[in-house]
Amino acid sequence: MYIGIDVGGTNLKAGLVDGEGHILKAERIPLDFRSPEQFAETLAALAKTVMGEGVQSVGVGLPGAVDGGGVLFTTNIPMKDVPLETLFRRHLDLPLLLGNDADCAAVGEFFCGAGKGTEDFAIVTLGTGVGAGLILNGKLRGGVASSEAGHMVMRQGGEPCNCGRLGCWERYASATGLIQLTKRAMEAHPESALHTCAAQGGVEGRTAFQAAEAGDETALAVCREYVENLACGTASLINILRPEVVAIGGGVAAAPAHLLMEPLREAVGRESFSRHGGRVTRILPAELGNDAGIIGAAFLPRVL
Amino acid sequence: MYIGIDVGGTNLKAGLVDGEGHILKAERIPLDFRSPEQFAETLAALAKTVMGEGVQSVGVGLPGAVDGGGVLFTTNIPMKDVPLETLFRRHLDLPLLLGNDADCAAVGEFFCGAGKGTEDFAIVTLGTGVGAGLILNGKLRGGVASSEAGHMVMRQGGEPCNCGRLGCWERYASATGLIQLTKRAMEAHPESALHTCAAQGGVEGRTAFQAAEAGDETALAVCREYVENLACGTASLINILRPEVVAIGGGVAAAPAHLLMEPLREAVGRESFSRHGGRVTRILPAELGNDAGIIGAAFLPRVL
Repeated sequence: MYIGIDVGGTNLKAGLVDGEGHILKAERIPLDFRSPEQFAETLAALAKTVMGEGVQSVGVGLPGAVDGGGVLFTTNIPMKDVPLETLFRRHLDLPLLLGNDADCAAVGEFFCGAGKGTEDFAIVTLGTGVGAGLILNGKLRGGVASSEAGHMVMRQGGEPCNCGRLGCWERYASATGLIQLTKRAMEAHPESALHTCAAQGGVEGRTAFQAAEAGDETALAVCREYVENLACGTASLINILRPEVVAIGGGVAAAPAHLLMEPLREAVGRESFSRHGGRVTRILPAELGNDAGIIGAAFLPRVL
Repeated sequence: MYIGIDVGGTNLKAGLVDGEGHILKAERIPLDFRSPEQFAETLAALAKTVMGEGVQSVGVGLPGAVDGGGVLFTTNIPMKDVPLETLFRRHLDLPLLLGNDADCAAVGEFFCGAGKGTEDFAIVTLGTGVGAGLILNGKLRGGVASSEAGHMVMRQGGEPCNCGRLGCWERYASATGLIQLTKRAMEAHPESALHTCAAQGGVEGRTAFQAAEAGDETALAVCREYVENLACGTASLINILRPEVVAIGGGVAAAPAHLLMEPLREAVGRESFSRHGGRVTRILPAELGNDAGIIGAAFLPRVL
């Protein structure tokens, strides 16, 4: 029996998870960060509310970077170089395993979703950025070895990325990149149905797909360019690591298959080294949605 | 005790290797490929000439791709889908372990060179192409998972690569890429000392470094551009995998440190995600030179 806690932008979600990845008990509380000490105490209290028999460790997934039981930094919470496990154990004497959120999504999908049955698995999560999690030979590339595949350069000298490089894959393949493509197309094409789709709630990741579904040519071109960008980095990742499966997660992955997953598979197949021989990587949609974080955090002890 | 055989473009080199990586006995014969059957017989005969007590397997490194004991294809020999181990065992009944040449270089350096003492190691070999070998958590990404990191795209829509993609890292960071940069600079700068350096034997990988050493501005600019290209993909590889060490091998790596390794480290440091926290990857020259192939092939049983 395992406990997993998913630290999101606004909530902490905890679950008691059995060996098959079923969430038997769940609890959610708002994130109210005051200090590392108070945060550690909150995690311990939350773990206790879902505690079950045979739990031997608590896994926590957070946005940021970790090193063993310590947090190097988090992106939505002001933590830097915090010995979280030490603080946690003052309130609950169990090992605390830490993973970043993309890595926890990888672990969840590896055991219970798109990566089930593989030994070599990657997940690419399309959101504000491009998150990546790698499980190779059944072991997570976690902690200080956690992948930042979104920060491979796809266009040398290209658009500035938050990380400081120019032309990172993340700049072109994230939901943010898709929204930027969409906005530029709207400026150039005042006649496009993109304007109608965006009128309800502004431009989002889904806007281009919605207008393309309605047959808008400009939107179709946006979708095609976006898929080419996503495929470019995906094929590079596959050439470097040759995993069995790459799962695509995040909000954008919910787009109609004929506009995203199908042309993505076609483009990656065309650009993968494996067409010269060897392992052919499958590209699958992620399956677990919001539960991946809890399940992945819970199963960290299996892959660290 | 181990036997390693390095299949090169013109020679087969075999060595009896002890547990510390010392080559105790060596033999070299010309490559004279007639058929897979004859090739397997030659490998077995060659292994016998260096045989020693306690040898339990034979490792072979070749340019191409392998899958377990089979050869998927080789680039310098006309082999395709050859069950090499089966053919070999007709003449010498020992397990035959196969690796591609970049992977064997990685294994050799991992145990006896730049990667010694690490668990997560990458080597980038600069030659006709850019070869890459990865050892992660102490295990080689070999066989069907063998890395083709040279075929990550660094300039989307860039120059055509032999692999079929456009803008692969290999096009810009290989010795071939360096020679192309050098030739273009020579056309644009008839006054450059590059012409003098190239007069003895044509343009080679070292030409730009030689002229730069002599203070030629055009050559210095070529070296700088080449290092930026090498650094771009190296930083991407590091961001994706966060190894402890990346070793740089191949003929180009012999360039003066102030023109290659030092500016490379500076540029990669600037572009690595680790400056936000976490593991800092060291960039080191490969150490074993031509022996890496034999030693790495010999030590394949330790990492497969």
